[in-house]
Amino acid sequence: MRLLAALGRQPLDRPPVWLMRQAGRYLPEYRAIRAKHDFLQAMTTPELAAEITLQPLRRFPLDAAIVFADIMSPLPAMGVEVAFDPGPRLTPIAPEDVALLGDPDPARVAYLTETIKLVREGLDPAVATIGFAGAPVTLLAYLVEGGGSRQLPALRRALHSDAASPALETLARATRSYLRLQVEAGVDLVQIFDTWAGWLTPSQFRALAAPAIRHVIEGLGVPTIYFAPGAAHLLDQFPALGATGYGVDWRLPLDEAWRLIGEDRVVQGNLDPAVLLTDPDTVRRATRAVLDEAGNRSGHIFNLGHGVLPDTPVECVEAMVTEVVESVRVGAR
Amino acid sequence: MRLLAALGRQPLDRPPVWLMRQAGRYLPEYRAIRAKHDFLQAMTTPELAAEITLQPLRRFPLDAAIVFADIMSPLPAMGVEVAFDPGPRLTPIAPEDVALLGDPDPARVAYLTETIKLVREGLDPAVATIGFAGAPVTLLAYLVEGGGSRQLPALRRALHSDAASPALETLARATRSYLRLQVEAGVDLVQIFDTWAGWLTPSQFRALAAPAIRHVIEGLGVPTIYFAPGAAHLLDQFPALGATGYGVDWRLPLDEAWRLIGEDRVVQGNLDPAVLLTDPDTVRRATRAVLDEAGNRSGHIFNLGHGVLPDTPVECVEAMVTEVVESVRVGAR
Repeated sequence: MRLLAALGRQPLDRPPVWLMRQAGRYLPEYRAIRAKHDFLQAMTTPELAAEITLQPLRRFPLDAAIVFADIMSPLPAMGVEVAFDPGPRLTPIAPEDVALLGDPDPARVAYLTETIKLVREGLDPAVATIGFAGAPVTLLAYLVEGGGSRQLPALRRALHSDAASPALETLARATRSYLRLQVEAGVDLVQIFDTWAGWLTPSQFRALAAPAIRHVIEGLGVPTIYFAPGAAHLLDQFPALGATGYGVDWRLPLDEAWRLIGEDRVVQGNLDPAVLLTDPDTVRRATRAVLDEAGNRSGHIFNLGHGVLPDTPVECVEAMVTEVVESVRVGAR
Repeated sequence: MRLLAALGRQPLDRPPVWLMRQAGRYLPEYRAIRAKHDFLQAMTTPELAAEITLQPLRRFPLDAAIVFADIMSPLPAMGVEVAFDPGPRLTPIAPEDVALLGDPDPARVAYLTETIKLVREGLDPAVATIGFAGAPVTLLAYLVEGGGSRQLPALRRALHSDAASPALETLARATRSYLRLQVEAGVDLVQIFDTWAGWLTPSQFRALAAPAIRHVIEGLGVPTIYFAPGAAHLLDQFPALGATGYGVDWRLPLDEAWRLIGEDRVVQGNLDPAVLLTDPDTVRRATRAVLDEAGNRSGHIFNLGHGVLPDTPVECVEAMVTEVVESVRVGAR
């Protein structure tokens, strides 16, 4: 598998390519399913979730499928009910009470392990299957805010209290257990999404977020990619997290990201998803520029610097993937 | 005026202190006015706006009053109607059409110049009056998105188009003209708020945002403070903007901010506003830590790293201001 080879920093003729949110609303075949089924139903019905996961692979020669699920998916299995309208909504939980949550009940995420099995059956064996979870800080943010939030006041207050560390420890244990279920079901690697990590100061990240991330990752048994957007001020702490690779957003040039994370690290990214809102010619030029920034390094995984935006034209995604797949490295190192 | 002295890097026995959003919802006397008047009415009635501006000065020994207005304030005077619910809402404008907007009609912002005069009459002469405006990129974001936005897709698409540069030029000219009205009415300095600059890449900031900011600032006739949150990846470009001082958010330690912006620059910040959601003891310790990071540098303006959050207890703001005012520098350099 090309993606696993890149994670092992093996020389390749071109980088592997996949997109965050490659399955979703920009695809008419996804919208056709969603016209008949709501988000929760689509996600928790293995046949539908597997079909949605595979849809982008039928259109584009991608190197990975990422299982159609949500950062919130483990929460109901931990006894926390979540609604979508369309963003996640739940009754806010005090950080002290977050520490009391248990691991996800495997029976209540059986739909996900079943989806993973269906995806693997439907995939070309050269294509990797990616499982994922939210990082502990990001889960804590949703739990204490009761959903997404512009300024994250409850999370940021919690980070100044003694309740943060036990809450993050609990969420790390639960996330690890949730990811192990995905590994046992057959994913080839996992990505940890840390949507809100960029709101932390370097010292908060070092003291609170990093130990929890390490707990999630260590000895998981498959390669891991850690992704946090808006985290330029934290990149120098990434190598200490112990992941196999690091996803970076589009706001730093890749060579600057490698300088901060470490030249011998695997880096994933980082085309600006807004480029995909333009036209195929612009997309090909911008894709070429990202490939040029990566140079002929092994250990580059081509991706966007954040998820596909909802109004993205399909032909722009096609132009991006084609440009990467047609690129051939000379003298890969 | 202590604030102007700090902007001139004169040695002082303690740094000046003011807070972004120091007038607002956390104050019961503000809520009392708002119980009788909606946001727009409070802002556009000089007697009310001046009273709201002065409210925090009656409680705390602050070194500046910032005129109660909104980043959106110049827009109606430019022919763009804005509603608040509570965030700003307007009909999205294509970037090509933004370039056609004119300067604000002085008659339609006469309430603001009148407010400034009332504020100055009501203030101790040692206290500075601050005017403000949004930076061109931030205004463009609101105009093309039709309000605030989590992902700013319309702005980010516009930044990849030829329409961005003329639109920003128009907004720079209008903003400059709007700030000149405030200077003529008597403000001692102005702050430029660039709420969304952190979404730009370094090359977008250099090519598009920076020239527009320079156009706003150059030769304005009063000192200027430029503030952009979430812009750690852009700090090294700040000195080239030509402002007198630079506000930084709470996510970078102040000594790191000085290293990036330049040791001989004036830096404003940067207590985490979420600290003000805790208790007075925690606030005093965290305030002390920021003062210690600044060391005995002249050219430090104490402030939060972002605006006061709505649920902030008044006694926490009091603890912060007291800690700064009671601090006395030894051997200021």
